Amino acid sequence: MNRKALFQLIKERKSFLCVGLDPDPARLPKHLGEGPAAVYRFNQQIVDATRDLCVAYKPNTAFYEAMGPQGWEVLHATLEYIGDDHLKIADAKRGDIGNTSKMYARTFFETLHADAVTVAPYMGEDSVKPFLDFPEKWVILLALTSNMGSQDFQFTPQEDGQPLYAKLMTKAQEWASPDELMFVCGATHPEKFRELRQLAPDSFFLVPGIGAQGGDLAAVARHGMNDHCGLLVNSSRGIIYAGNGEDFAAAARKSAQELQQQMVTALATYLP
Amino acid sequence: MNRKALFQLIKERKSFLCVGLDPDPARLPKHLGEGPAAVYRFNQQIVDATRDLCVAYKPNTAFYEAMGPQGWEVLHATLEYIGDDHLKIADAKRGDIGNTSKMYARTFFETLHADAVTVAPYMGEDSVKPFLDFPEKWVILLALTSNMGSQDFQFTPQEDGQPLYAKLMTKAQEWASPDELMFVCGATHPEKFRELRQLAPDSFFLVPGIGAQGGDLAAVARHGMNDHCGLLVNSSRGIIYAGNGEDFAAAARKSAQELQQQMVTALATYLP
Repeated sequence: MNRKALFQLIKERKSFLCVGLDPDPARLPKHLGEGPAAVYRFNQQIVDATRDLCVAYKPNTAFYEAMGPQGWEVLHATLEYIGDDHLKIADAKRGDIGNTSKMYARTFFETLHADAVTVAPYMGEDSVKPFLDFPEKWVILLALTSNMGSQDFQFTPQEDGQPLYAKLMTKAQEWASPDELMFVCGATHPEKFRELRQLAPDSFFLVPGIGAQGGDLAAVARHGMNDHCGLLVNSSRGIIYAGNGEDFAAAARKSAQELQQQMVTALATYLP
Repeated sequence: MNRKALFQLIKERKSFLCVGLDPDPARLPKHLGEGPAAVYRFNQQIVDATRDLCVAYKPNTAFYEAMGPQGWEVLHATLEYIGDDHLKIADAKRGDIGNTSKMYARTFFETLHADAVTVAPYMGEDSVKPFLDFPEKWVILLALTSNMGSQDFQFTPQEDGQPLYAKLMTKAQEWASPDELMFVCGATHPEKFRELRQLAPDSFFLVPGIGAQGGDLAAVARHGMNDHCGLLVNSSRGIIYAGNGEDFAAAARKSAQELQQQMVTALATYLP
């Protein structure tokens, strides 16, 4: 899915919501049973309940790896179940030396048919480039993450006074165009979105941190939206664990709908 | 395996060699056949041929993930096959927000029974800490990696003039002791090992970049060894692809032996 097609979806669905599919076996509704099959049923029902409200799904690989080999079957089946009308993001935060990153890229893009993969930047250009060799696929590079630990290194001023995340965003745009590269920018730093948007005017940002982590959607939209929207706002726990009884899917839909309604307003207000 | 036990192994085997088990299906000897079973046979024979020459094995998860769900079975079986007389390092370069890093930590330490996992530092303290909650398990944090891309961000001077890797190594030692934290320091920067050792006098360094990547073992040992040896020097491709015929295991042994012989000399010369 290219940038134009993604923007088209956003306009059609009046939504820039990404639903994070991070199923913790310990938190699934009891009536679904246990084990990988229960996780798959959970994902199917979450997807069915939210399809028309979002433009992307983002399974975090940690939750699938934790189930052992069958977890990878569930991840594969879930991505297949989502189909082609959503951007499918493998939240894997991979990154290694060139020949190894190439193996990861093949896994996520060719075997699992994900559209995008999150990549950790610490190892630099040759750890990122192999993910860029796949047409119409996306790298989503960690820039300013939503967690407390973002304070440790990402904000550190470099010799020229710029923080590390700014250097990184500038540098990475020499490697790839906004048609193949997005950045992770956490909603827990809403005051930074004006600056982040200046650093990468045309890029899409994947924005975690709304909901359980306390980020501010309106502020993100006000400062972060560009003429292609340029935002994919993710919510994981706030949606998938909105309920934990037999009506969990309806509760998830309600929670997703609340965010989508805020997005209708944001798009009407801030899309140029 | 704790630091004392690791040092004991190093003295017994006169080796600080780590063998990287990164099996690329396209490069396996033809007579082994194809698919995950062939990879497992390959790993078994490499392990059998090198057991007495090394103190650690390091499978890189990328090569197992690329095989799909069965790849995780092979990784699990390989770690089990190695047994308890070597440090088992899952080279995964993971790192995510706290609740997600916790899932990864459980996978590698509890499900796969690895002794150590490599962790990417960009997301800071709360992305690393969950890996530290497991007694006698190790975090091996990326500090100065062996690839070209290490130039992009790791060497960047911070406001105080120190490069990022130095800030990171200093900071990370506030989170964990040398009994639970190692650093990845690439052998492709041998001139840096004096400084790296000053930054973390008591820590073990996992040192990739010997062999295929061109690093210099003698220089690393001269500048990097401490009173617990403090070095695990890894070779992957240089050992496992030393031959590609029916005698591949013998060729791997020969290649491992050459490195181990250099280590006998290095230990006799530089161990205080």
